[in-house]
Amino acid sequence: MFLKKIINSIADAGKDLLTKAFTGQRNLSTLLELSEDLISYKGVASGIAIAREISETYKTLSVEDKKKFFQEIDKKLKPNMDLIEQKSIEFAKNKNKETLKELASLAEGNRQEFIRRMNMAPNGTAFLVSMREDLLKIVLEDSTLKDLDEDFKHLFRSWFNPGFLKLEKITWDTKAAILERIIKYEKVHKIKNMDDLKRRLEEDRRFFAYFHPVLNDEPLIFVQVAFTQGLATSIQDIIKPKTDDKLKADTATFYSISNCQQGLTSVTLGNFFN
Amino acid sequence: MFLKKIINSIADAGKDLLTKAFTGQRNLSTLLELSEDLISYKGVASGIAIAREISETYKTLSVEDKKKFFQEIDKKLKPNMDLIEQKSIEFAKNKNKETLKELASLAEGNRQEFIRRMNMAPNGTAFLVSMREDLLKIVLEDSTLKDLDEDFKHLFRSWFNPGFLKLEKITWDTKAAILERIIKYEKVHKIKNMDDLKRRLEEDRRFFAYFHPVLNDEPLIFVQVAFTQGLATSIQDIIKPKTDDKLKADTATFYSISNCQQGLTSVTLGNFFN
Amino acid sequence: MFLKKIINSIADAGKDLLTKAFTGQRNLSTLLELSEDLISYKGVASGIAIAREISETYKTLSVEDKKKFFQEIDKKLKPNMDLIEQKSIEFAKNKNKETLKELASLAEGNRQEFIRRMNMAPNGTAFLVSMREDLLKIVLEDSTLKDLDEDFKHLFRSWFNPGFLKLEKITWDTKAAILERIIKYEKVHKIKNMDDLKRRLEEDRRFFAYFHPVLNDEPLIFVQVAFTQGLATSIQDIIKPKTDDKLKADTATFYSISNCQQGLTSVTLGNFFN
Amino acid sequence: MFLKKIINSIADAGKDLLTKAFTGQRNLSTLLELSEDLISYKGVASGIAIAREISETYKTLSVEDKKKFFQEIDKKLKPNMDLIEQKSIEFAKNKNKETLKELASLAEGNRQEFIRRMNMAPNGTAFLVSMREDLLKIVLEDSTLKDLDEDFKHLFRSWFNPGFLKLEKITWDTKAAILERIIKYEKVHKIKNMDDLKRRLEEDRRFFAYFHPVLNDEPLIFVQVAFTQGLATSIQDIIKPKTDDKLKADTATFYSISNCQQGLTSVTLGNFFN
Repeated sequence: MFLKKIINSIADAGKDLLTKAFTGQRNLSTLLELSEDLISYKGVASGIAIAREISETYKTLSVEDKKKFFQEIDKKLKPNMDLIEQKSIEFAKNKNKETLKELASLAEGNRQEFIRRMNMAPNGTAFLVSMREDLLKIVLEDSTLKDLDEDFKHLFRSWFNPGFLKLEKITWDTKAAILERIIKYEKVHKIKNMDDLKRRLEEDRRFFAYFHPVLNDEPLIFVQVAFTQGLATSIQDIIKPKTDDKLKADTATFYSISNCQQGLTSVTLGNFFN
Repeated sequence: MFLKKIINSIADAGKDLLTKAFTGQRNLSTLLELSEDLISYKGVASGIAIAREISETYKTLSVEDKKKFFQEIDKKLKPNMDLIEQKSIEFAKNKNKETLKELASLAEGNRQEFIRRMNMAPNGTAFLVSMREDLLKIVLEDSTLKDLDEDFKHLFRSWFNPGFLKLEKITWDTKAAILERIIKYEKVHKIKNMDDLKRRLEEDRRFFAYFHPVLNDEPLIFVQVAFTQGLATSIQDIIKPKTDDKLKADTATFYSISNCQQGLTSVTLGNFFN
Repeated sequence: MFLKKIINSIADAGKDLLTKAFTGQRNLSTLLELSEDLISYKGVASGIAIAREISETYKTLSVEDKKKFFQEIDKKLKPNMDLIEQKSIEFAKNKNKETLKELASLAEGNRQEFIRRMNMAPNGTAFLVSMREDLLKIVLEDSTLKDLDEDFKHLFRSWFNPGFLKLEKITWDTKAAILERIIKYEKVHKIKNMDDLKRRLEEDRRFFAYFHPVLNDEPLIFVQVAFTQGLATSIQDIIKPKTDDKLKADTATFYSISNCQQGLTSVTLGNFFN
Repeated sequence: MFLKKIINSIADAGKDLLTKAFTGQRNLSTLLELSEDLISYKGVASGIAIAREISETYKTLSVEDKKKFFQEIDKKLKPNMDLIEQKSIEFAKNKNKETLKELASLAEGNRQEFIRRMNMAPNGTAFLVSMREDLLKIVLEDSTLKDLDEDFKHLFRSWFNPGFLKLEKITWDTKAAILERIIKYEKVHKIKNMDDLKRRLEEDRRFFAYFHPVLNDEPLIFVQVAFTQGLATSIQDIIKPKTDDKLKADTATFYSISNCQQGLTSVTLGNFFN
């Protein structure tokens, strides 16, 4: 695509302008420098270049380095208690809009802005979801990172707002790549293989999944429904092969609801059915 | 769609639960009550019902009532200076995370949350873009509403982040409904009619538009490019009918860039080419 | 596409094997030689190469040369009266299946097989439809070519069998390239421009077209329907702008049916509505 | 679809006009009467109704009755030797175009026209392909039906002409319903299950299938290609799991070509690769 190429060449140009000398080795320290650049950049083109660089470098880190990266970045971007204290005192003396705006901005810190800017990277949203997946594991060991995770969650709630999701019926006409992911994601009433899944797509069953428009072919949450005659007495009843062709169902059972993305844990959409 | 129906019926049920007695007449006061409900609701289902009700009622208002609506809602949802003052003093005495969180939340106020929740309405994003279009006109008369607009802008920057937009080539194979909108939106180098537009889609021209996945068929911004031999000396040169079949272009001119949506004024994407 | 390339390279190889020396100039005599080759070739690959060569050469001919081409080819491919006479006498003496098969084959001649093989050229079907369009004009001057046209018609009836056509609703969401063709093809109740067409696509109108899967974006026939209150008294009544928003239609009028392709004149599909 | 409904209601009306009294039981004799009607009908609408009725009735027949049906229909529709003899003598006396046309028509008989008209039934082409599948088995027992099969083959060659087929790349993004059929159709180098198939779709493999536009999701023929370093020494080499990530292939092996449809046996497309 012509314009795509232009944008990429601008991004490439932006990248060349980066003062960091990449000596072939990407590592934690360059990553942190880039992160500071991202927060202070001007102009979308160089922003895209930096965000791309960060996402590519991050992926090469060890688990240990990822932990250090989150800790360092949190330290740099979190709200500055001393500055907020000063501004609070100023505001208490002088309640006006400008001071309020500054206070609100200080109180938020820079973590959200960092995440928002990272979203400009190619496949930025998918990258951020997997980044939070990492973070959630690390939070278990280092609870000081909980606030960073709160900021991820805050933005994801905005981006994965029900208004942005698309509900799609999953059938045997769905592409195999999506069906394979569903098999992998179903943790409660496990699906052994494609044949096992096929049974759950038959005419007396319904299978729906929510998708986000920029996370191609990645189901976010899915819901399984069985039409039966009377209430099924057990899950085995529901997932056993179809026996009766003449379906006279009078009952719809929602028998399984799964959140697929660890990186979207407790983001609103899952609460829909609670 | 089966699940769609379920969701709608839940939403309808939620609606029935609303304590407001609609006496057939929707008006400003019910709208304000609904807006308070939206901020305080629990559960997605009733949230969707209320947001839908608000969007439908809002559309029936006169310009004068819209103005009053914005003023009232701003009054109710804007940051509360007195509470922030108290919390500021508290924070200055006791710098801890909990107090900070409360301070940040008070400093933001409830306007953003209101807008985020409105996005759950069917076609909520399109509705909010047109709502801001109204607001921008009203701000010219009542500058106190500028902060409300800032909150719209803040959220739109997050939602219309370059990472969420799709770039598409506009050609003579594009659906007429989109081409018609482009004719309407091009304000600088006006397009008289379909034939006039067709010339801009020929092989020595390129036409690209950005779309947001939930604003179907609504171009957000478009860019027009001409391939010419040497620099064109005037815009007339560029938009005149093609004369020479054997194209030996050596120059690409970006001759027109248009922001289509008034409701997205000064949201980042337009700055890309600045 | 990988396999496409292989096929093309096979076709190219086939082309190189052609014994005709193309001295840069394609003309009637090479075309006739190619046509004989096409009838006698073995193997699909060289067949595709020859058919492609014929279609490209044919397009460069003058009207006069096209006429000569049809006359020459008809002479070569038409049933041979003398051979049929011999075979008839043989059959009358000896009524068996083998003789019958030979007789039937001789009685059909080679014109249909030629047309069938031409269909292997890239976009062969579209080419053949436009070839018949030429032929139909030439038949008016030279009625001896009527039988050749009968063979075209026979095959087209088989290929444009109602079972192969797809009915599609034409709306304002249809691509402009198709709408433009419809404006051009409507000869009875002329459509002035896109705006004029748009009126015929509004909610109190219906517009359907038949397409053949290998003739991309080429409507074959279209049907226009008006929903009105009571029978319209004139065509002006039907094509005038919509006046009444609250549609209480009780009458559906099929007010225009058009065959789009001259090259498909009197092929069955048009008779559907007779 | 509005027009679809009209067509169906016309077809239904046509059906009501059928003089056959269906006493709830469809059988061989009504089928034969319908077949005669199909040959003699006027007008597309009643033709569609009759063809639909025939296809539905045929499917209910036992193998034995199908055999009788083919025998009876062949008897009625095959070329009439006595009439051809008369016409042959007439032609030998009087070699003119009219007599030739009549002779050719008699020599062809009515079987092809019957098949052509059957194609108007809903999913007529798919029905005819499965009908020929039945016929091919029956021909093994009754070789007098070979000529009927020749007529099927003649028409299928015209309809499944390479010019009408679409080549598509099969990948893990192909719908599961198609992949399942491919597993079933691969008879030479069997595919155990979806995982086994997935290996053949990886980046060092290519998989292509031909489709006909009216046989939805039904592969007609498929071709499998392996990219390897040097020639593989055995098929096991080719279908074993991928071991080496850094692919330096220098050889493309077409290791499997399958015709999927029994009903299309020896129709040209399969010969492409011969």
